Amino acid sequence: MRPIPEATVARLPVYLRVLVEMAERGVATASSEELAAASGVNSAKVRKDLSHLGSYGTRGVGYDVAYLIHQVRRELGLTQDWPTVIVGVGNLGQALARYRGFADRGFRTVALVDVDPAKIGTEIEGLRIRPLEDLPEIVREHQAAIGIIATPAAAAQEAADAMVAAGIRSILNFAPTTLSVPEGVSVRKVDLAIELQILTYYEQRKAALEDVGAEDGGGALGA
Amino acid sequence: MRPIPEATVARLPVYLRVLVEMAERGVATASSEELAAASGVNSAKVRKDLSHLGSYGTRGVGYDVAYLIHQVRRELGLTQDWPTVIVGVGNLGQALARYRGFADRGFRTVALVDVDPAKIGTEIEGLRIRPLEDLPEIVREHQAAIGIIATPAAAAQEAADAMVAAGIRSILNFAPTTLSVPEGVSVRKVDLAIELQILTYYEQRKAALEDVGAEDGGGALGA
Repeated sequence: MRPIPEATVARLPVYLRVLVEMAERGVATASSEELAAASGVNSAKVRKDLSHLGSYGTRGVGYDVAYLIHQVRRELGLTQDWPTVIVGVGNLGQALARYRGFADRGFRTVALVDVDPAKIGTEIEGLRIRPLEDLPEIVREHQAAIGIIATPAAAAQEAADAMVAAGIRSILNFAPTTLSVPEGVSVRKVDLAIELQILTYYEQRKAALEDVGAEDGGGALGA
Repeated sequence: MRPIPEATVARLPVYLRVLVEMAERGVATASSEELAAASGVNSAKVRKDLSHLGSYGTRGVGYDVAYLIHQVRRELGLTQDWPTVIVGVGNLGQALARYRGFADRGFRTVALVDVDPAKIGTEIEGLRIRPLEDLPEIVREHQAAIGIIATPAAAAQEAADAMVAAGIRSILNFAPTTLSVPEGVSVRKVDLAIELQILTYYEQRKAALEDVGAEDGGGALGA
């Protein structure tokens, strides 16, 4: 496999989502302009990105949606199942265990892990919560490839260390902290506040445009 | 305010996170190369992005971390509080209500809303869950500016419509569906599976490199 630029890899899941939505609406072909508009990038970039997959579309027709879905999925490694372990079964861990968007896309949660004795042994979505010490066994049994950390910040490094020791090399970290892992282990961090901070930039601009003559609700807790 | 390119706006929260981590470690100045390495972009882009904020650093010294934090926060509108309403109080909504990373960064959850009569009136984190009909009152009372949708996909459009009718113009959507909103309303979608799909690209490449001579664990549920 030739390596694909990192920024392109990061956009492929976005194209995939757009393409799947098109397929669900019965759209059979899409131009790079349509893909670009729905993905929030420009069409030259879409064409360049897809050329890395060996996909060039047909002049005047565009890309075959179903075939392009197949190509993107193959490139991202989504034509196989990815057994996933969630460590940290608080509200977020439970939400992730129940999140339909994971299982629908091949991320099957095979085990839930926590350190809290009160939680261990209880069941969520048919999975019994197991102790951190079971990680090596879980990875062996289920060939778990991906670990999701949904612990509080203070427990995240311990969770990552246990995952790495058990042989997991791909970690998705929801804890608001930076993990250190050995070379060869990939970590991606999800920061739920980042999208909110992008929203406030635009909200602030809207508010500034209306500043003159704006009505104040006068609420006691107002901003 | 001059508008800043959309791609720059999307990177500012990432720089902010990196800068805050530096400040916590006691780092007083940072070069564009250091910021670039920690943010995963190249240093020319960092300099270009920060120039939109009127920040150019000092040759041979770099950027003043504390001052740059202030500039980025001001630009993103984070020097004020953003009262936030969460609609949909299942596991994800509860996790978001309890997520420390929101309140820490000025996103104060002022109300929780659900349509389930069994949930309405109960309390989470000291907030009583209120019915969807209360949204206009909530927005007036608390001057709520941001709405977070954490409902199932099928209920998300109704939640968005209610938010828009109540005067909310910035929506963060966690439901795995596309919303239609009138012009002037910003929606950002959080797709929790996207990061996982980026991880699998790299995991797949690692696995391919090891294919010859790889040991199979032989687990019955193996991929």
